[in-house]
Amino acid sequence: MDVTTLPRQTAALLSNSEDRDALVAAYPLVRAATMSLASPVSAQDAAIQSMPDVSPTRWHLAHTTWFFETFVLKTFDPSWQPVDPDYEVLFNSYYNAIGEQFPRDLRGTMTRPNAEEVLDYRAQVDVAMMSLLSAADATTWSKLGPILLVGLHHEQQHQELILTDIKHVLAQNPSWPIYREALPDDAIEAPAQERLVCPEGLFRIGTSGREFAFDNERPQHKVWLDHYRIASRCVTNGEYLQFIEKGGYQNSKWWLSLGWDTVRANDWIAPLYWVHQEGAWWQFTLHGLMPLDLNAPVCHVSYFEAEAYARFAGGRLPTESEWEHAIALHPISPGAMADDGRLQPAVATAGRGMRQVWGDVWEWTASPYTPYPGYVVPKGAVGEYNGKFMCQQYVLRGGSCATPSSHIRPTYRNFFPPDARWQFSGIRLAWSDR
Amino acid sequence: MDVTTLPRQTAALLSNSEDRDALVAAYPLVRAATMSLASPVSAQDAAIQSMPDVSPTRWHLAHTTWFFETFVLKTFDPSWQPVDPDYEVLFNSYYNAIGEQFPRDLRGTMTRPNAEEVLDYRAQVDVAMMSLLSAADATTWSKLGPILLVGLHHEQQHQELILTDIKHVLAQNPSWPIYREALPDDAIEAPAQERLVCPEGLFRIGTSGREFAFDNERPQHKVWLDHYRIASRCVTNGEYLQFIEKGGYQNSKWWLSLGWDTVRANDWIAPLYWVHQEGAWWQFTLHGLMPLDLNAPVCHVSYFEAEAYARFAGGRLPTESEWEHAIALHPISPGAMADDGRLQPAVATAGRGMRQVWGDVWEWTASPYTPYPGYVVPKGAVGEYNGKFMCQQYVLRGGSCATPSSHIRPTYRNFFPPDARWQFSGIRLAWSDR
Amino acid sequence: MDVTTLPRQTAALLSNSEDRDALVAAYPLVRAATMSLASPVSAQDAAIQSMPDVSPTRWHLAHTTWFFETFVLKTFDPSWQPVDPDYEVLFNSYYNAIGEQFPRDLRGTMTRPNAEEVLDYRAQVDVAMMSLLSAADATTWSKLGPILLVGLHHEQQHQELILTDIKHVLAQNPSWPIYREALPDDAIEAPAQERLVCPEGLFRIGTSGREFAFDNERPQHKVWLDHYRIASRCVTNGEYLQFIEKGGYQNSKWWLSLGWDTVRANDWIAPLYWVHQEGAWWQFTLHGLMPLDLNAPVCHVSYFEAEAYARFAGGRLPTESEWEHAIALHPISPGAMADDGRLQPAVATAGRGMRQVWGDVWEWTASPYTPYPGYVVPKGAVGEYNGKFMCQQYVLRGGSCATPSSHIRPTYRNFFPPDARWQFSGIRLAWSDR
Amino acid sequence: MDVTTLPRQTAALLSNSEDRDALVAAYPLVRAATMSLASPVSAQDAAIQSMPDVSPTRWHLAHTTWFFETFVLKTFDPSWQPVDPDYEVLFNSYYNAIGEQFPRDLRGTMTRPNAEEVLDYRAQVDVAMMSLLSAADATTWSKLGPILLVGLHHEQQHQELILTDIKHVLAQNPSWPIYREALPDDAIEAPAQERLVCPEGLFRIGTSGREFAFDNERPQHKVWLDHYRIASRCVTNGEYLQFIEKGGYQNSKWWLSLGWDTVRANDWIAPLYWVHQEGAWWQFTLHGLMPLDLNAPVCHVSYFEAEAYARFAGGRLPTESEWEHAIALHPISPGAMADDGRLQPAVATAGRGMRQVWGDVWEWTASPYTPYPGYVVPKGAVGEYNGKFMCQQYVLRGGSCATPSSHIRPTYRNFFPPDARWQFSGIRLAWSDR
Repeated sequence: MDVTTLPRQTAALLSNSEDRDALVAAYPLVRAATMSLASPVSAQDAAIQSMPDVSPTRWHLAHTTWFFETFVLKTFDPSWQPVDPDYEVLFNSYYNAIGEQFPRDLRGTMTRPNAEEVLDYRAQVDVAMMSLLSAADATTWSKLGPILLVGLHHEQQHQELILTDIKHVLAQNPSWPIYREALPDDAIEAPAQERLVCPEGLFRIGTSGREFAFDNERPQHKVWLDHYRIASRCVTNGEYLQFIEKGGYQNSKWWLSLGWDTVRANDWIAPLYWVHQEGAWWQFTLHGLMPLDLNAPVCHVSYFEAEAYARFAGGRLPTESEWEHAIALHPISPGAMADDGRLQPAVATAGRGMRQVWGDVWEWTASPYTPYPGYVVPKGAVGEYNGKFMCQQYVLRGGSCATPSSHIRPTYRNFFPPDARWQFSGIRLAWSDR
Repeated sequence: MDVTTLPRQTAALLSNSEDRDALVAAYPLVRAATMSLASPVSAQDAAIQSMPDVSPTRWHLAHTTWFFETFVLKTFDPSWQPVDPDYEVLFNSYYNAIGEQFPRDLRGTMTRPNAEEVLDYRAQVDVAMMSLLSAADATTWSKLGPILLVGLHHEQQHQELILTDIKHVLAQNPSWPIYREALPDDAIEAPAQERLVCPEGLFRIGTSGREFAFDNERPQHKVWLDHYRIASRCVTNGEYLQFIEKGGYQNSKWWLSLGWDTVRANDWIAPLYWVHQEGAWWQFTLHGLMPLDLNAPVCHVSYFEAEAYARFAGGRLPTESEWEHAIALHPISPGAMADDGRLQPAVATAGRGMRQVWGDVWEWTASPYTPYPGYVVPKGAVGEYNGKFMCQQYVLRGGSCATPSSHIRPTYRNFFPPDARWQFSGIRLAWSDR
Repeated sequence: MDVTTLPRQTAALLSNSEDRDALVAAYPLVRAATMSLASPVSAQDAAIQSMPDVSPTRWHLAHTTWFFETFVLKTFDPSWQPVDPDYEVLFNSYYNAIGEQFPRDLRGTMTRPNAEEVLDYRAQVDVAMMSLLSAADATTWSKLGPILLVGLHHEQQHQELILTDIKHVLAQNPSWPIYREALPDDAIEAPAQERLVCPEGLFRIGTSGREFAFDNERPQHKVWLDHYRIASRCVTNGEYLQFIEKGGYQNSKWWLSLGWDTVRANDWIAPLYWVHQEGAWWQFTLHGLMPLDLNAPVCHVSYFEAEAYARFAGGRLPTESEWEHAIALHPISPGAMADDGRLQPAVATAGRGMRQVWGDVWEWTASPYTPYPGYVVPKGAVGEYNGKFMCQQYVLRGGSCATPSSHIRPTYRNFFPPDARWQFSGIRLAWSDR
Repeated sequence: MDVTTLPRQTAALLSNSEDRDALVAAYPLVRAATMSLASPVSAQDAAIQSMPDVSPTRWHLAHTTWFFETFVLKTFDPSWQPVDPDYEVLFNSYYNAIGEQFPRDLRGTMTRPNAEEVLDYRAQVDVAMMSLLSAADATTWSKLGPILLVGLHHEQQHQELILTDIKHVLAQNPSWPIYREALPDDAIEAPAQERLVCPEGLFRIGTSGREFAFDNERPQHKVWLDHYRIASRCVTNGEYLQFIEKGGYQNSKWWLSLGWDTVRANDWIAPLYWVHQEGAWWQFTLHGLMPLDLNAPVCHVSYFEAEAYARFAGGRLPTESEWEHAIALHPISPGAMADDGRLQPAVATAGRGMRQVWGDVWEWTASPYTPYPGYVVPKGAVGEYNGKFMCQQYVLRGGSCATPSSHIRPTYRNFFPPDARWQFSGIRLAWSDR
């Protein structure tokens, strides 16, 4: 199975825990997609951690397996014997309710289980899972189904992280190693950036549907929005280059105080993975070093950079409510997603309405990541999934070229600290003025 | 002039830059109140910085003076000669537009100007200010008035910091030095905590008035609030002690992830300034070490602790909009403020409605500090006053026992990072359930 | 070629750059021994760096090759084309005269060249080296020979580091991975520790011989030594356990001030790799976790621990001059060395004189690492080999169970900072009293 | 009593604990000299700590008093009541045997006791000491005398630190505050640097005398020295400027590896307190900012700089044995010391032999600070005085312009880490070549 053929239709399979057949069908598909994404990564590279935020590919393969072993097999299969008691600690990411965790910033020192043992771990758990899924009675299923569904979406999140993390790993090397060869590409010019009008009103944000959503997308609630306008496409590399060339990284006036501190402490002069050599700008990609495409969306910027650029450009970032409302109001069209195998943001297409809504780049919003009104942390270890991280992070919307298309939806909330740059994160502008 | 007699009526003087007479009258009153607060601090103690967040008293006295010298005298008095060119750097807190700044965390190494020279600096600037204020023509005043008004409110902010900072400085000493003797106090029992009902609706938050407000309180905007309930008073030391005694600081399940990291990294086991000795809890205050008053509001807790306690207690923190709306909806009554000279939070009074709204403790809200919809950063150096700090902080409302009563108002937004504890910060609960 | 058969006779081949035939014969033997030591390390494990002091196995394989490429091929072979220009930076350890260096603490993020590419690099350089060595004319050889000899001894140093570094890497894992199966072992009791008498006098220390020695062993010079006594064998695990059980790690009185700081900052309670579980002490070894052998020499202690133990035991560490003089004065016998394949320190043998002089454990001396009187730093990049590190380190003598036997000699000086524990470092006592 | 009149003859009083009358006479003289040195420091400045190595003047005044209270009054006066139990912790520098210590790097946060209370503490202890000294019987004296003598030399060490520490405190200020006005000074040219010949031989180093010396100067022992030459005077600012101007701080080849790391991490480009402004070099002194005197000895250099300069200049640093032998072999003459009140190193005088032996600048030696052969740590808390610091420091010899002349002697060993620069530390060259 090749990643480029990951079926978009998986989305239907992943939408509802009550559709047991769909979910049982989805399990092997999702698991196989993970393997497919990991397949270009050699066993050697799969062990490397290039910074604390990055996890080795091998760890992702094992941790997603640990999730099913811990929350499904150990819970619902009385005969289950742990594959290895050490794994409980080694592959627990952050669940205090489960127990101790191997230090996150030392995952790159973890030599065992090795790649073969991790694949074996996946296989053992998959066999047991498929067996359990077919054998479970209705009562068991009513409890198992929802956690299975979470587990599959969780695995998709790690599919994206496999890509962003290995990109960071490979970027440490002066030889600019290639994860996979680039697909052929036509040079396209980006369309003009239009300002789409969104009149004021009281709107419903978040989901109340029965279809799958993470707890952080609930409950649906009302939000008043003043009149605003939102950009028809994301900011391009060419536009962002203006900011650089006009001294944006040298002038404190565009920046939040913490942002300015970060710029100076890290000597930032451009987005992550931008390389200036021989008088021109290049960009490290999963296909190696490539010339900077001025028409493609700017990518690998932090919230600080997104916010500073917006100020420079005379606009601002949209709030997450504005973003969610705007895509309901206007025609939308997608950009590149993981299933396309492009693995780089694509130039916006011509047309009407909001382009690049799904994929290409995650779009930083102006919204700190907070619980929705009425949000309640779920009981048990799964309650640690989202709630405890609702602090000191910002919401991003829309997915990126590394996000599986079956994983995203209008109410989806991603979140990272404001200095994070290793995700495919970009900028869409908004304006309050009329 | 004694701090205990700081006239509450100063509030009227500080409300409008168009009332020139009032403002000219306010200037010496506010400046004198600062001196009064600094007067119990010896010249020796006034030089000490006990942690990076704390500034020496002497620095506060000089910096507030620098504000008037820089933004008023240098701007509006063509004949003004700087008192000392070094002061431009030494007492610039964070205004990049003005120039270089002496490193904030090294303010405790600043030996010159000494206390006498700083007092002389204040005197020179005050003389020149009074002269300029009386001589300015109407055109000048129209520009000078607004910045003067900001300067006076700025000075009041530093009045509070003088108190919180010297408290932290004195707390480093095993002999628990006294800033000022305590006023006599009657033992009172805290009234029961009621849940005041606030029905849903669309409300206006922030100010549109002509009276003084910081830029971060504008523009007024509409917010939809779901039905909620809010506590009639703040959480007491006795209630918080339950959290401690039931292992609150040892159980990750109550905490945000960053909060739990902070608790463990700093070995927190109780609020700042709580001291356990001889089998009982004591509290360091500006009056020295005193037995913990179980009926008084809990104080010197971080956002992390406030949020964890709220979860433990089955509630949550109110958003800043809920807080602002609730005090408009219900009868309110104040607590202790700086002018009372009590300098410790007082037990809530009996009665109806929301008590302790002004003073006693700043109340952490669930709201990250963000710009209001439509907010625009003001032009020039004063634009650095608020806007650039709207990141990674939380809003607190209501003022504390160290806040001048003429400084606070319903729309006032204070803000600190979630691990800050050296302010008089406490907890008011809210609930979403009906 | 198996490591256990590494010929001791290589020593003869490595002693003199004028014996060209011997040296040309030694080159492939030494290079092959490196490969043999690396062979049990999987390509995956060979990439890992578990702390800044540790380098990945793969890096050692490449760096030793870089040494020959840089100092021999690039210098003496005019037709040489660099295998890869990036390698000049990636595998330069610390030679500022050569150019930039990849950051030492990030060697674990270096994904390219991968294991296969590094082996290919070795092969290319080896082919070119063998060709050059046979073709060089006498004039070239007179310059090439000495640097070749240094390169071979340099490679042997990295042979030892391959073992100590992979031990540290494997030790991070709760499953205690095995580098190689242990050889069969007889339980032996350690002989009594005798105090061998060494009368005072003026002695010659260091080498003046024509045989190979590093620059730091020269020039030979006179040292006056007072009467002293030196232990006949190294301190055992059983003896060291007394120090632990009598609270040695909890009592500041045994420790240097910096040592005590280090103990507390790192929560040291025993030597590195000691594991207390199920009521007993175990030791992590290259053969996995094994019961602590009370008769074997204590190992993986820092200078701080060696110095503190000596004080506890009523003795002191010998100076390096005393050590060197004592082995000339008394009969000596060796312990285990790398060629034995034991890879753990062995119990001292019965007999007379100084036992365990070569191998088993490096012996910390009381001597800071300083230049010998009259020492002059050699010209050129090779001058960076030793001289610039003569600061803030202590001398160790005698080699360990991970040292190739053909690498050691009486005047050999090893050196590490006083808190280093990942080498096979132990303790021999001395006494000043008569 | 003025510091400039501190009697050189005090040396006689401080030499022998058996001369009770002399010692009793010395006590008030030494104590008064401390007060005299502190007198130009305002109570405000006396509280400041500008870096972890620096202690506030107030702390020095209290700590030296604590020494007598702890080791004399508490030990020998059964009726003694501690002045304040907190002082035991607050003013214990590093004596683990005595108990807990207030953190060294937070001494600048210690507000109590304030300056007046510290002076009162000194007075109380002095009264009790004088009373005890006169009343002690012979048996008591035989134990008390030696510790009293140590206490007086200890106090003299802190006299020097009062000067070096307040210099660092004042240097943080852009206004270059003055500790005391400079004495009038004649411009003198430095004499040529001669190389004084010292033939090889076996020499006695250290003291065996009955006169006072610290434990680290004992026991006397034999050292063989090869032929060497030593400079007749210290390196001048003018000579050191050559090193700077020829790119010494930009070229790794002169530096130890740790030294080069330190230069780059701290952006060193010149000695501490050198200021480049308006095209010329200035020097911050205790008399304020003064033009750099090219004839005076270079001062405030680290060991790293001294060692690098020596290599640049074609020489090396002398060992401490060489230094001690050379001053016995050649005529010697002193430089400026604390009693002269000059407080800056003076230009070397013309004449024969070794100049500037006492005073002007401490001279870095090539010798790591280690125990002399046969050294035994004294019993009890006083055993912590020297022994536990014999690690990772280098020996300096000869005293500086801030050292009391009655405090120094030929065998005196001072010691600091190799990156320390805030002492008056300079360079004397030596050469191994003939």
